[in-house]
Amino acid sequence: MDRNSVGIVTPNKFTFGSVEEPMVLESGRTLGPVDIMYETYGEPNADRSNAILICHALSGDHHAAGYHSPHDPNTGWWDSMIGPGKGFDTRKYWVICSNIIAGCKGSTGPLSINPQTGQPYGLDFPVVTIGDMVEAQKRLLDHLQIKRLYSIAGGSMGGFQVLEWALRYPDMVRSAICIASAARLSAQAIAFNTIGRNAITRDPEWREGKYSDKGPEKGLATARMVGHITYLSEMLLDAKFGRRLQSASRLSYNFTTEFAIESYLNHKGSAFTQRFDANSYLYITKAMDYFDISRSHGPLKAAFANVTARCLFVSYSSDWLFPTSQTKEMVRALLSNGKPVSFIEINSPYGHDAFLIEEEKLTHILTGFLTGVAKEVAA
Amino acid sequence: MDRNSVGIVTPNKFTFGSVEEPMVLESGRTLGPVDIMYETYGEPNADRSNAILICHALSGDHHAAGYHSPHDPNTGWWDSMIGPGKGFDTRKYWVICSNIIAGCKGSTGPLSINPQTGQPYGLDFPVVTIGDMVEAQKRLLDHLQIKRLYSIAGGSMGGFQVLEWALRYPDMVRSAICIASAARLSAQAIAFNTIGRNAITRDPEWREGKYSDKGPEKGLATARMVGHITYLSEMLLDAKFGRRLQSASRLSYNFTTEFAIESYLNHKGSAFTQRFDANSYLYITKAMDYFDISRSHGPLKAAFANVTARCLFVSYSSDWLFPTSQTKEMVRALLSNGKPVSFIEINSPYGHDAFLIEEEKLTHILTGFLTGVAKEVAA
Repeated sequence: MDRNSVGIVTPNKFTFGSVEEPMVLESGRTLGPVDIMYETYGEPNADRSNAILICHALSGDHHAAGYHSPHDPNTGWWDSMIGPGKGFDTRKYWVICSNIIAGCKGSTGPLSINPQTGQPYGLDFPVVTIGDMVEAQKRLLDHLQIKRLYSIAGGSMGGFQVLEWALRYPDMVRSAICIASAARLSAQAIAFNTIGRNAITRDPEWREGKYSDKGPEKGLATARMVGHITYLSEMLLDAKFGRRLQSASRLSYNFTTEFAIESYLNHKGSAFTQRFDANSYLYITKAMDYFDISRSHGPLKAAFANVTARCLFVSYSSDWLFPTSQTKEMVRALLSNGKPVSFIEINSPYGHDAFLIEEEKLTHILTGFLTGVAKEVAA
Repeated sequence: MDRNSVGIVTPNKFTFGSVEEPMVLESGRTLGPVDIMYETYGEPNADRSNAILICHALSGDHHAAGYHSPHDPNTGWWDSMIGPGKGFDTRKYWVICSNIIAGCKGSTGPLSINPQTGQPYGLDFPVVTIGDMVEAQKRLLDHLQIKRLYSIAGGSMGGFQVLEWALRYPDMVRSAICIASAARLSAQAIAFNTIGRNAITRDPEWREGKYSDKGPEKGLATARMVGHITYLSEMLLDAKFGRRLQSASRLSYNFTTEFAIESYLNHKGSAFTQRFDANSYLYITKAMDYFDISRSHGPLKAAFANVTARCLFVSYSSDWLFPTSQTKEMVRALLSNGKPVSFIEINSPYGHDAFLIEEEKLTHILTGFLTGVAKEVAA
């Protein structure tokens, strides 16, 4: 039992928009009504100025901390960072995390019923962008009567949302924490997403997105396996698995799962199909591919000119999916605008996944940064 | 017309073994008869001491140079390196390249007829190793009355064969050129191969390897796409494709192929299915996964103790599939044995594929190295 857990939490659902008054998306298409699942940890202060929005990555959801029942074996995906005395200290901050639109954990997405047809949206769901995800979060914050976020934080695609918030609503973001992220997805990252999507759509069980029950489990598992390799460093794979055989000392000379790394990837792929929707995977990776600050807000220096948030950028030395060079590009753009910006590259062997693993290193940095934001407010 | 082309070449077939007297493989299983397709360029000298064996990589074959007919639009896969005045100068050397066993270009592989059943082997084909490929090449060299190779060269999996030759038949290898290779496949590389194989075997058209006609084209295309990403550097993908859209200035907001990198990968994947067999892909990647000098020959220093070949190792700065560090490991092992070994890391943005692309840089190095070998012989 983690004494610093936020304990049992209950997800909430917020609904906005309707068929008649839908949300207008960046594509020009519309969506409504829109459900947003969210959880909160800690308590709001009197003027709700202590709110911190946590933005999740590709496979995350609104359940960022605590557990859902007394015997729940799983805690939220960032439980190590959110709780009393943790990096996002719930004794001081009111922490909120919502499931993105296009997700599959209760927020409106391809699994939801299309009010026009009475059937699940499937591929009728409109393509959404990181900006659309942020707009939906904005509606949630309005509903929660939050005028200005004390901070906003996220890693990977969560970092995309952090950046989009800081650019779109500078007056609402007091500080921003962008972890293991970038101003745009690289060609290589788009390539990996392309393979994941192809694996899904080439699975005959996908049925043009109109699957029921199991769906394209094999394709989704392959997509997840590709993703997993990109989340881990070569160094870590060598240290953790190397060329170790899973359960034998001799080579099998057949095509059974044989190396420990094969077994690990197969397990990760299969497990993912139990908790994630294949169509959601298509939409979310597409939103990631589309993210490009330069396309939506102009060249980086100009784009960051209006940012008022105090920014913290964190990268990890062995992250090759979102390498440090991409973080530095943003730091340079903010510096060239004379903005206060903090940047640290954390030495870690864990690759991109380090932001979910290296809790101790990140905790020290977050605690200091968030305290500094408070001082600035007091000044 | 390349004036330095070897011109029109005709493949040859060499057959050894039989059902009664088969080749015994490392696994203990047997294979026979065994066909080996090969090509030769240049002429043997009187004592056949000027032979250079070229070993191909995963998707290569015996057609390494020249063309097959006057209007053949395609030259051999290493045509830039093999020919009169080229790196492997056919005015001086007798260059030989054979298709590996388990391949799909005429050497015995899963596509071949199993004499026991009268049907294609499919998954009845035995799992072969790099060592088995080398044994088959050894039989070919015996047939060609080559007692000692002037040199042997190969990149990637071709480098595995080079190393295996130098270790297994030190007396037959005067010099060895190991390019963009390693003493073993890393966990990350096994992981990518695993995904490729899974994509094939999860394609319903694979039919447990008993497909006819088209076979698992979608799975094979996905496997090739994964491979392609690993062959190119992030830098090159950014420079060549970046976030450029294939044929529009605006985002499509749908799931059509949209970014140039997506289009490129899709094309590479589809094209590959026209020229490669899915079962061969399974067997060859498995042979790569199994390659591990330490497993077969002991710790690297001890393993290399009996190498007598003058060795040249070449790596490429942006190759992340077979990084320079893996080459250095072998160079260190040879140096610690007091062996003559040359090593160069070529600066290149082309990633692993650089060994097929950076012809000029490689030509200078090869020419010098091969000339040096001759001097040593004369001394």
